[in-house]
Amino acid sequence: MRHSIGIFGLGVMGSSLAKNMLNHDERVALYNYTPDLTKQFIEDFPHQNATAYEDLEQFIESLEKPRKIFLMVTAGSITDSVINSIVPLLDKGDIIMDGGNANFQDSTRRFHSLKKLGIDFLSVGVSGGETGALNGPALMPSGEKDVYDKVAPILEKMAAKVNGKPCCSYIGTEGSGHYVKMVHNGIEYADMQLISEAYQFLRKIIGLDVKEIAAIFAEWNEWELKSYLIEITSDILNYDDPETSQPIIDVILDKAGQKGTGKWTSKDALDIGVPASIITESVFARYLSSLKDERVEAANYLAGPKMELEISDKDYWINLVKEALFMGKICTYAQGFMQYKQAAEHYGWDLQLDEIALIFRGGCIIQAEFLESVSQAFQADPELKNILRAPYFQEKANDYEGALRRVVMKAMENGLSIPCLSSSLSFYDGYRSPRNGAELIQAQRDYFGAHTYKRVDKAGVFHTEWGTDPMSRD
Amino acid sequence: MRHSIGIFGLGVMGSSLAKNMLNHDERVALYNYTPDLTKQFIEDFPHQNATAYEDLEQFIESLEKPRKIFLMVTAGSITDSVINSIVPLLDKGDIIMDGGNANFQDSTRRFHSLKKLGIDFLSVGVSGGETGALNGPALMPSGEKDVYDKVAPILEKMAAKVNGKPCCSYIGTEGSGHYVKMVHNGIEYADMQLISEAYQFLRKIIGLDVKEIAAIFAEWNEWELKSYLIEITSDILNYDDPETSQPIIDVILDKAGQKGTGKWTSKDALDIGVPASIITESVFARYLSSLKDERVEAANYLAGPKMELEISDKDYWINLVKEALFMGKICTYAQGFMQYKQAAEHYGWDLQLDEIALIFRGGCIIQAEFLESVSQAFQADPELKNILRAPYFQEKANDYEGALRRVVMKAMENGLSIPCLSSSLSFYDGYRSPRNGAELIQAQRDYFGAHTYKRVDKAGVFHTEWGTDPMSRD
Repeated sequence: MRHSIGIFGLGVMGSSLAKNMLNHDERVALYNYTPDLTKQFIEDFPHQNATAYEDLEQFIESLEKPRKIFLMVTAGSITDSVINSIVPLLDKGDIIMDGGNANFQDSTRRFHSLKKLGIDFLSVGVSGGETGALNGPALMPSGEKDVYDKVAPILEKMAAKVNGKPCCSYIGTEGSGHYVKMVHNGIEYADMQLISEAYQFLRKIIGLDVKEIAAIFAEWNEWELKSYLIEITSDILNYDDPETSQPIIDVILDKAGQKGTGKWTSKDALDIGVPASIITESVFARYLSSLKDERVEAANYLAGPKMELEISDKDYWINLVKEALFMGKICTYAQGFMQYKQAAEHYGWDLQLDEIALIFRGGCIIQAEFLESVSQAFQADPELKNILRAPYFQEKANDYEGALRRVVMKAMENGLSIPCLSSSLSFYDGYRSPRNGAELIQAQRDYFGAHTYKRVDKAGVFHTEWGTDPMSRD
Repeated sequence: MRHSIGIFGLGVMGSSLAKNMLNHDERVALYNYTPDLTKQFIEDFPHQNATAYEDLEQFIESLEKPRKIFLMVTAGSITDSVINSIVPLLDKGDIIMDGGNANFQDSTRRFHSLKKLGIDFLSVGVSGGETGALNGPALMPSGEKDVYDKVAPILEKMAAKVNGKPCCSYIGTEGSGHYVKMVHNGIEYADMQLISEAYQFLRKIIGLDVKEIAAIFAEWNEWELKSYLIEITSDILNYDDPETSQPIIDVILDKAGQKGTGKWTSKDALDIGVPASIITESVFARYLSSLKDERVEAANYLAGPKMELEISDKDYWINLVKEALFMGKICTYAQGFMQYKQAAEHYGWDLQLDEIALIFRGGCIIQAEFLESVSQAFQADPELKNILRAPYFQEKANDYEGALRRVVMKAMENGLSIPCLSSSLSFYDGYRSPRNGAELIQAQRDYFGAHTYKRVDKAGVFHTEWGTDPMSRD
């Protein structure tokens, strides 16, 4: 049997994607560095269209041309060594797809170096975790458009569907697919942190119990906040630990791990000049969470207000938290899509922001109804600088900014740290500030470093002789 | 005449350092890529101990051995090409010092590659701008200790003095001197942004005029906030534009420039896992400031509260702003010194944090009385994890956290964006939070990605089978 695609790497994600492809009538060749995983796969999921190989040459040889090989290996140097091992076995025009969580700069490098060898390379951002990979992930493929067209039928079949449309479309050249996936993950970090802040507010300030909060999240999932993360939060809060019979949330240690894609998003935003403060605060919140021992100690020596724990007008505040959370989400996506817009210019990619929003609409961790509106905003105006400028989001922002403001102030009054909600508000108020104090920074820079400044009333670059510098007075 | 030191690069900083060295009886050889700057120097500042060279070989030849060459050229690839041009003219044991604003990773690379050639390399962080360079900068030298000892007499003479002690001491190996300078600049970004936020609060919310605010900053400079940046802020606000007779602050455009060291600090913090949220918010605030046209437009379509503009109990609020600014400063330095501590471990440097604080005590842009207390904190306990843990800062934090809280809430109530003050408060409340919501993030990560979690009640790593994932329900 000639196989229509080969999968290299049969970990959790690779196996799930393989099953997904087999379920969609692809003929799939399977290979893994160690044969245990391929054997395991065939045992668990015997299928007439699946063949496991222990020999790399036979694996490659079994593929119809142009060969299509999907890599699902640990991102980093392993990807390079795998590519190096298979390239000598390939013919010109064969296609390597990398579905790992690769750094987009590595992907761009691989794209160009393989191109020189006549091998076509596609970066494929994959989101949706194990379940998404199995049932339909969101896919963000990049490389040459005509190469994508050759694999599009396979990828689009596998992908999640929303209203019949696959959550997969061509992103752009080079490693732009992995770039889009990276910022997706950054947004995911912020989404998760915002939810955690809303949860803490409901629990610690309004004084609700865990099951009440689970019900509230379930209710919110019927509203504009409807999304995968809101839904699983309700599931999580409803789950009791079998051992202690307590809500499981109360036995889980509050030190958040991370795999680095949030950090990459923030570093890229810093590099290309995008004020991605909310995503970055969510990364730092994870770092701070890891200092558990210091936090526990500091609680004893650093003062703060007592939490209210019981609030009289509960329903009023629950509704405000809902609106504040949605407003935080709007600000997060505003920043995320500012980053895509700036990346398109900075890296020279032709990113279709309406399409990207639609990809996220299903299959991935940040899937949400809300993304339909983001997509429509860019469809209506592809030059849109900020989603806040689109009529729908303007209206929502004007409706909900007050709720965000009140919730952040209440949290601060009570000593609850809500870094993403509060940086959402700082961003919102900063973005709508026609004059924002940077004039003083420019004056200081000109004072101590003769860095010059511009004026509000005429063009040009100016420097002031400020007088005697305190450094020469001392 | 044999020269005791050679300066390569006679821009603003190089010339000022040269004059400083000549004022301290060094015999200085001068060289610049183009001879115009050396000629200009000799014309402006004729000195019996200064010789300008047009020929690189003669410049090098004129130095006593081991030769000491101080580079003051634009950081980046120019530094490499300058080093490559002089290395063939040097003997083993000669010393190159780089005083540019180099990236510390470049400096570490240069240190090792020159070492292989037998050339000694020192990274010298220089702060203080033109005036500091002339009258006494803060210096942060790194490399081999015994090499530093050979140049210490020159550097320590040149450096600023506080209570007779030079603001210069050996930092550590490799590029650690430029690392310390980098974080210094990051702290400077945050310090400046905090001052700008305090200024805006006084102006836009308390409703003071520019000259009143100038007087307030002058007054604050007699208090615990005493520092170079506070002093020049008062000077700036007192300065009227000769053309329009308005306060100059009102004619300067509010788009802040930057040279990249703040961004480097944030990227490094992200890399080594330090929650440097305040510095990073100050970098993002500059990015947001550059979107002037978008901000002006957004002011018309995004709603927010009206500013109060007149407040009844002015003196009460002025005092709160003062305390809030000091508290923001404490949090900023807490994060900056967390970053030094983590860098020492991550990069394997033996950083003396008490000495670093003392270097900053004079000569540099962030010089402040406050740094005496930072130094004392690390002197009393070199293992101190966070300055907030030191008795002095504990007391100050407990005294002023309430002021920070009230000022941030008031600013938010009035729609004023104060990203650094508010992230200071988020950090403070997060650092003293024994349980902070990261348990929900860990639960979500385990739910969608089987990333596992730890428990509060026993050791080990756990995974829950959460039930039917919504992705497979759809």
